[in-house]
Amino acid sequence: MSKSLADDIVGRLKFTADGLIPAVAQQYDTGEMLMLAWMNADAVRETLATGRVCYWSRSKGRLWRKGETSGQVQVLKEFRWDCDEDTVLLLVDQTGVACHTGRHNCFFHAARDGGIRVIAEPEADPEALYGSKP
Amino acid sequence: MSKSLADDIVGRLKFTADGLIPAVAQQYDTGEMLMLAWMNADAVRETLATGRVCYWSRSKGRLWRKGETSGQVQVLKEFRWDCDEDTVLLLVDQTGVACHTGRHNCFFHAARDGGIRVIAEPEADPEALYGSKP
Repeated sequence: MSKSLADDIVGRLKFTADGLIPAVAQQYDTGEMLMLAWMNADAVRETLATGRVCYWSRSKGRLWRKGETSGQVQVLKEFRWDCDEDTVLLLVDQTGVACHTGRHNCFFHAARDGGIRVIAEPEADPEALYGSKP
Repeated sequence: MSKSLADDIVGRLKFTADGLIPAVAQQYDTGEMLMLAWMNADAVRETLATGRVCYWSRSKGRLWRKGETSGQVQVLKEFRWDCDEDTVLLLVDQTGVACHTGRHNCFFHAARDGGIRVIAEPEADPEALYGSKP
């Protein structure tokens, strides 16, 4: 994508006072909700420029190229945003698993059958993905 | 749902310093990403108690029972949350349209074909939904 188009998009997005915007990642072909993370303007620009999703890690305080350690990258299929221009929807193709626990997506807690249930099991070993327990 | 289970869930969720948590609504059967809004603890409790989605309106500074004016309610199908317990995923059955613009979902801006495109048109008239332009 051209730099000027990326600049136009960044100019329209409404970032928080901390310079962040929530970004929801959805698997483009199955509709599976994978995760929610945060982007800053640089993360948006890098994602649009490279076609690989880059977030802002609030815990690390730096750009976080999804999969940089684990190899579980997200290839951008389409960049969308909402009516209020304060939320991003990333349609992606997820390599492997999205969740740092080794589960395919992060939303594995559910209120179901009168209790709190874990509704998905890890498909990958976090130690193998990260070299140590995350 | 029992009050004690709802209390357990609220106790696990990590709210921001403002007492809020982002909540993503997805149409339960089609996988369509509808919107992102915010909940506080009371909104979570009311949603779990009634089975109808209630958010916290940051602009109005009060509970916002989705569809209270427009009739475009969200019936809760399942309440999920993520690995970090700081994001909610609401699987819902959306009545009518989710977006205040009359579009079926809020994510109608896209970077596509070298430009910024509006990829969905209103299916309902906002004036009819709200009695005036929102």
